[in-house]
Amino acid sequence: MKKVAVLLSGSGVYDGSEIYETTFTLLALEAAGAEAICCAPDIPQHHVVNHATGEVEEGEGRSVLIESARLARGKVVDLAELSSSDFDALILPGGFGAAKNLSNYSEKGPDCSVDPGVASFVRAFHAKKKPIGMMCIAPVIGAAVLGGSGIRLTIGNDQEAASALKSLGAQHVDCPVDEIVVDESNQVVSTPAYMLGVNMIGVKTGIDRLVAKVIEMI
Amino acid sequence: MKKVAVLLSGSGVYDGSEIYETTFTLLALEAAGAEAICCAPDIPQHHVVNHATGEVEEGEGRSVLIESARLARGKVVDLAELSSSDFDALILPGGFGAAKNLSNYSEKGPDCSVDPGVASFVRAFHAKKKPIGMMCIAPVIGAAVLGGSGIRLTIGNDQEAASALKSLGAQHVDCPVDEIVVDESNQVVSTPAYMLGVNMIGVKTGIDRLVAKVIEMI
Repeated sequence: MKKVAVLLSGSGVYDGSEIYETTFTLLALEAAGAEAICCAPDIPQHHVVNHATGEVEEGEGRSVLIESARLARGKVVDLAELSSSDFDALILPGGFGAAKNLSNYSEKGPDCSVDPGVASFVRAFHAKKKPIGMMCIAPVIGAAVLGGSGIRLTIGNDQEAASALKSLGAQHVDCPVDEIVVDESNQVVSTPAYMLGVNMIGVKTGIDRLVAKVIEMI
Repeated sequence: MKKVAVLLSGSGVYDGSEIYETTFTLLALEAAGAEAICCAPDIPQHHVVNHATGEVEEGEGRSVLIESARLARGKVVDLAELSSSDFDALILPGGFGAAKNLSNYSEKGPDCSVDPGVASFVRAFHAKKKPIGMMCIAPVIGAAVLGGSGIRLTIGNDQEAASALKSLGAQHVDCPVDEIVVDESNQVVSTPAYMLGVNMIGVKTGIDRLVAKVIEMI
């Protein structure tokens, strides 16, 4: 059974993993007969956003690992306990958690850095030629960690994010929501998801294609 | 366009709405061409559960409405602002939030009561013969509010919950995860979802059938 790590960043589009993207990823992995292991770093969230108002909740703190467990129905593993050797592939759903918790892209843009545990996990999959899927804003993590490889990625067609990917050494390819961009030589697949999504079906179609390609590449 | 209220109870299986059930409900409604309006009562959660350990977080409080907004990508409406007249149907996903926040079934069992705003909302749909879909543990709300109608419901095959439904005046029908129980005279549809689910695909199949039946009944 193919074993895929799904790297989460909390639970909720504005401060964690995008919920529908994660659900569609896990569903597609199950449909493909793969085993999904949800994981997250044991770090505090950058902040907590009241999703009803969009405002930051001053003085409130939450844990990326504990909130990620909501998205995994309790079954989440601390990233620090995992080795890329135990997996065949890695998938990073999007949501602002990828840009606020796993990296600081939302604050620093093209000058962003990536959480050291996340960076070494991603780098290890790449070094072993194990496929990596990234959706929504998560490709900024791929670019920040692997940009020097001239990796080909998409975040849809947002000019600011596309330009940041280029500054980080990656190539950006415009892509519609229901399609994927494949970098065969780097074994990396990306799809815009909610960077472009206006409905769930379009986002799900792109993610279904991403998961199918990642599984095929194993 | 058919308009369906989706009544949430937070975000996370152990203290709110079950995340995958809600996502599959919204996806099926979109696929059916219906408009989904997510709503929740503006009340505090019964408690907050650390989903990584299953333990209650003592001293922490969260709002049902604000946490529900995570599941709706921000677009959630306070139940108090809504009228059943504005909708064609109502769907209640499950998760312990239905048994802890929308009702107190998890504490009181067959002696449970339902949040007054939720009870009057559910009663209004039933009185107007507008279809109601309920999944997972949410049928206890239907039984507590409408049990006197001899309503036919399923929560799968859990004997304790089935017996509570009967005490509340409802009829319980055993049902597998990928099927639905339909009460044509009361316009009520139910499916076991994660009361029985061991995989996402089985749960999704049951929810797809529930949504299709609810839409057909409008």
